[in-house]
Amino acid sequence: MSAPIDFYFDFSSPYGYVASELIEALAAKHGRTVLWHPMLLGVAFKAIGTAPLPSIPLKGPYSLRDIGRTARFFGVPYKHPNPFPIPTQLAARAFLWISDRDLNRAKAFARDTYRAYFTEGRNIADQEQVLELAAAQGADQDTLSAALNSAELKERLKAEVELAMARGVFGSPFFIVDGEPFWGSDRLPQLEKWLAEGPF
Amino acid sequence: MSAPIDFYFDFSSPYGYVASELIEALAAKHGRTVLWHPMLLGVAFKAIGTAPLPSIPLKGPYSLRDIGRTARFFGVPYKHPNPFPIPTQLAARAFLWISDRDLNRAKAFARDTYRAYFTEGRNIADQEQVLELAAAQGADQDTLSAALNSAELKERLKAEVELAMARGVFGSPFFIVDGEPFWGSDRLPQLEKWLAEGPF
Repeated sequence: MSAPIDFYFDFSSPYGYVASELIEALAAKHGRTVLWHPMLLGVAFKAIGTAPLPSIPLKGPYSLRDIGRTARFFGVPYKHPNPFPIPTQLAARAFLWISDRDLNRAKAFARDTYRAYFTEGRNIADQEQVLELAAAQGADQDTLSAALNSAELKERLKAEVELAMARGVFGSPFFIVDGEPFWGSDRLPQLEKWLAEGPF
Repeated sequence: MSAPIDFYFDFSSPYGYVASELIEALAAKHGRTVLWHPMLLGVAFKAIGTAPLPSIPLKGPYSLRDIGRTARFFGVPYKHPNPFPIPTQLAARAFLWISDRDLNRAKAFARDTYRAYFTEGRNIADQEQVLELAAAQGADQDTLSAALNSAELKERLKAEVELAMARGVFGSPFFIVDGEPFWGSDRLPQLEKWLAEGPF
């Protein structure tokens, strides 16, 4: 049985969203499973000395154009949300809480949350939106509400982000397969070649 | 007759080199020609607040790995040069000087110069290397040598870089087709879809 694909993503990352719609089918085609890991781009951006795309001259306006085109290229529905970007700690913590109970429901929560933001424009930085999306996966809203703001879950997310960066993760989406890192939805063709043929 | 593809590149850009090996065949396949434009990434990096890849934590080590893999993915020979990156003003000025006399010889000079650096490790920041590569295209070394350090050609390159950035160019390779910008060798599949089917 082959090792799973590690898939790192930030809930505010458009390219992460695009990848989230493609990675499971790609992995399954090549007999792999996917481990989903929410991370926080803000922490990574600090480490590599960059900033959210919209704030960057030249690159910001280009990216807005590229994001929609990239989604269309991959056949993924996309509507640019406002506000963008947003803090994603709550959604990431909710993901971890659900994944401790049921990995598949956590993935379903991640997909629904991404779609809520990037196709319906729902502000998934709001705790109410996060709780509603989690409830659809069977989470008790009162229990999760208390957990989301607990020191324990905050520390857990912090540790997960540190672990990701210790593995070299600095962007979203970011994949690690058999120790090989792939950054960006545009690296999916290289990732697929790796899955099909092995190291190249 | 369709409009040409504008192709912006820095002679020290590995992804620009990879694209330089692919863009002419891709364009020809879809009945397009290519206008090659040398630019200076240092100026663009200043504008968007970034730095040469090797100096960036996490992203630097990743990029070194990604560059070789990307070259292999596209079937382009690659040997990481040392020193890297290097100043490319002289090569860019030589390109402009040759292109004023013969566009095709300028392209041949660009391809040879890229290959000299990224497959043979020749330091194309050196004026001697640039003159030798230009001589292979019929340039008189004494005439070009004087031109390379003339205020006129320096200003010309500066103006070309400013013009590129005024058009939104901030990286290498960068393509503009029918007004649509594409950044990165990883956008070649999107560029090809555009050439084949038009706007999407």
